[in-house]
Amino acid sequence: MSQLERLLAPYVEAVEAEMRRWVPPAEGPHRMLYGMVRYHLGWADEHFRPCAATRGKRVRSALCLMAGEAVGGDVACVVPAAAAVELLHEFSLIHDDIEDGDRERRGRPTLWALWGLPQAINAGDALFALAFLALNGLLERGVPPARAAETQRRFARTVIRLCEGQHLDLDFERRDDIAPEDYLLMVEGKTAALIALAAELGGLVAGATADLVEALARFGRALGLAFQMQDDLLGLWGDPERTGKPAGNDLRRRKKSLPVLLARRISDQAAEALDALFKADPIPDEMVTRTLQLMERVGARREAEARVRESYRAAMQALDELEAALPAERIAPLRHLTEELMGREY
Amino acid sequence: MSQLERLLAPYVEAVEAEMRRWVPPAEGPHRMLYGMVRYHLGWADEHFRPCAATRGKRVRSALCLMAGEAVGGDVACVVPAAAAVELLHEFSLIHDDIEDGDRERRGRPTLWALWGLPQAINAGDALFALAFLALNGLLERGVPPARAAETQRRFARTVIRLCEGQHLDLDFERRDDIAPEDYLLMVEGKTAALIALAAELGGLVAGATADLVEALARFGRALGLAFQMQDDLLGLWGDPERTGKPAGNDLRRRKKSLPVLLARRISDQAAEALDALFKADPIPDEMVTRTLQLMERVGARREAEARVRESYRAAMQALDELEAALPAERIAPLRHLTEELMGREY
Repeated sequence: MSQLERLLAPYVEAVEAEMRRWVPPAEGPHRMLYGMVRYHLGWADEHFRPCAATRGKRVRSALCLMAGEAVGGDVACVVPAAAAVELLHEFSLIHDDIEDGDRERRGRPTLWALWGLPQAINAGDALFALAFLALNGLLERGVPPARAAETQRRFARTVIRLCEGQHLDLDFERRDDIAPEDYLLMVEGKTAALIALAAELGGLVAGATADLVEALARFGRALGLAFQMQDDLLGLWGDPERTGKPAGNDLRRRKKSLPVLLARRISDQAAEALDALFKADPIPDEMVTRTLQLMERVGARREAEARVRESYRAAMQALDELEAALPAERIAPLRHLTEELMGREY
Repeated sequence: MSQLERLLAPYVEAVEAEMRRWVPPAEGPHRMLYGMVRYHLGWADEHFRPCAATRGKRVRSALCLMAGEAVGGDVACVVPAAAAVELLHEFSLIHDDIEDGDRERRGRPTLWALWGLPQAINAGDALFALAFLALNGLLERGVPPARAAETQRRFARTVIRLCEGQHLDLDFERRDDIAPEDYLLMVEGKTAALIALAAELGGLVAGATADLVEALARFGRALGLAFQMQDDLLGLWGDPERTGKPAGNDLRRRKKSLPVLLARRISDQAAEALDALFKADPIPDEMVTRTLQLMERVGARREAEARVRESYRAAMQALDELEAALPAERIAPLRHLTEELMGREY
C-alpha cells in the first residue's frame, strides 16, 4: 500500500458503501445496464459476477470528506456528497473513454469496447443520473433542504464546466493554434472544476461559512491545476521506472500538453521541430529525444515547472487561510493529500 | 396551425423563454458547445446564427404547466420544472440519435452527423446538466426548498427510468425472443416515465396533495403508453397521407413494435412470416403487404387497438378522479390534450 493509499483508506470504505446504496443490483430485466455500471466501477467482472478489479483511488471523495472534517462538520452528513462526486467522476470517464476512443482503463477493456457505443453511452447517462440521486441522499442525513438545494446547484454547474472543458479538449485535437491560456481554460473545466467541487461541497454540506467554502474551492482548483500540469511534465520527462511509460510518451501520442504549447510560444525553432514531429508517422525515437532536449533548452520545461509551483503554492496558501480560522490538526489531512499527490519537491 | 398546436401555444412561449435563460449564448471559448446545443433546440442554424428551424412541439412542458393549473397552482412557479422536463427530453434525443444511428431529426442533420460522435455525446451531457440547473430555478420562484428537493429526486429517478428503457430498446435489437410484456416495460421507461414526470411535477411543484400528484402521474403514464402503442399502430397501418410515411413503414425498418410481438405470440404462421420478412434484404413490397394482412387476420391489430383503448381509458379515468376533487374547467386542457394526441376515435 502506497503512502497515498494509506492516507485515503479511512475514507474509501464509507464512500464505497454509500455508492453501492444507489447502484441497483445486476439482476432482473435491467441486469445488463447495472452490470455494465458495476463493471465500470470495479465491482463486477464482464459476466457481472462480483469481483475485486482495480478501482479508482477515490481521491475526490476523500478530499470532500477531509474538507468536511476540516471545517468541523459531521462527516456522516457529507458522505452522500462525496459519493455523488465520485459517481460523477466515474460517469465522466465512461463518456471520455468513448470520446477519446480509449479501449482500456485500469487494466481492463472499457465499457464501449465490450458492449458497444450505444449501450456504453446509455450506461454513462444512467450513472450520471445516479450521481444526482446520491446527492439527494443528503436530505436523509438531516442536511437542511435549502443547503441541499445549493449543493445540487453547484453540482450541476460543475458538470457544465466539465462539459465545457471536454468540448475544448476535443476541439484542440483538430486545431494547431492553441495558446497556453486556452489550454489552462480547458484544464480548469476538465480537471480542476471537479476537484474544486469536491473540496467546496465538503465545506458547504458541513455548514461552513461562505469564506471557508470559498477558500476550500480555491484550494481544490489550485490543486487540480497543479496536478494536471505536473501530469503533463511527467508525460514528457517522468522517470519511466515510476510512470510505467517510456520517456517522452506524450510526444509519441502527439498530445498538445502544456510544455508543448509553451515551447511553441517561446521559440520558433521548437515550434518547427514540434510541427515536424507531429507530422512524422511513425515518430523516430531519436526525434523524440532531440525534441525533448530542444524543449528543455528553450526553457519550456522550466516554465511549466514554475507554473506547477505557482499553483501548488496557491493551494498551500488557501490551506494557510483555512488554518488561520481552524485547528491545524484538522487541516493536516488536506496538506498531506496535497503533498502525496504532488510529491514533496515543491 | 393544427388543433394541437393551438392548444399548446399559450404554454410554449413561457417555457421557451425559461429554457433560453439556462442555455448560454454561442460565443466566447465555448461557442461551439452552446452553438451545438442551440442548433439541436432549433434556435440556431449550423453556423450558430439564430434561426427559426422546426422545434419540438413542447408537449411535455405544456402538460406540466396544465397539471400545475389543474391543481390551482401558480403557473409561474411551475415554469422551471416544465423547462427542465423539456431540456431533459431534448438531451435524451441527442443521445438517442447517436445510439440509433439516426442522421436526421425534424428535417435537419442530427448533431453527431454534423459535428461527430465525441462532440455530440458531450453536448448531450451539457444539456443534461442544464436541465438539472433549470430545475434548481424553482427556488428563485419561491418554491419551498424541501419541495424543490423532492422534485429533483423524482427528476433524477425518471432519468434512470429513461436509461433503463433505452437499455432494453437497444438490447431488443439483437434479440428475437421479446414478449409483449418486455416491450411494455421498455415503453414504460423510454416514453411513459417522462410524460408521467411532466404531469406529476406540475402537481407537485404547485403544492397539490399526494393523492392528486399520484393521479397526475398515473394519468401521464397511461397517456404515454397509449400514445406509444398508437404510434406503433400508425407505423404499420397509418394513412400514408397523414403519417407522411409509406404503409407498413415499421415493417420495412424491421421494428419489433407491439403488433409484431403480439402477432408472433398469437400465431405460429405469423411468427414464421415475420421471421422471413426480417431476414429478407431487400424486403419486397409484396411481402410487406402480405405480412400486414396476415397480422391483421390473426388479430394482432385488434389486440393492439384494444390495449391502446385500455390505456386511453385509464388516462381518462385518472382525469375523472382529478375532476372529482377539482373544478372541471381546470381539467379540460388535459382532456383536450389527450384527445388531440390520441385522436377522438377511442
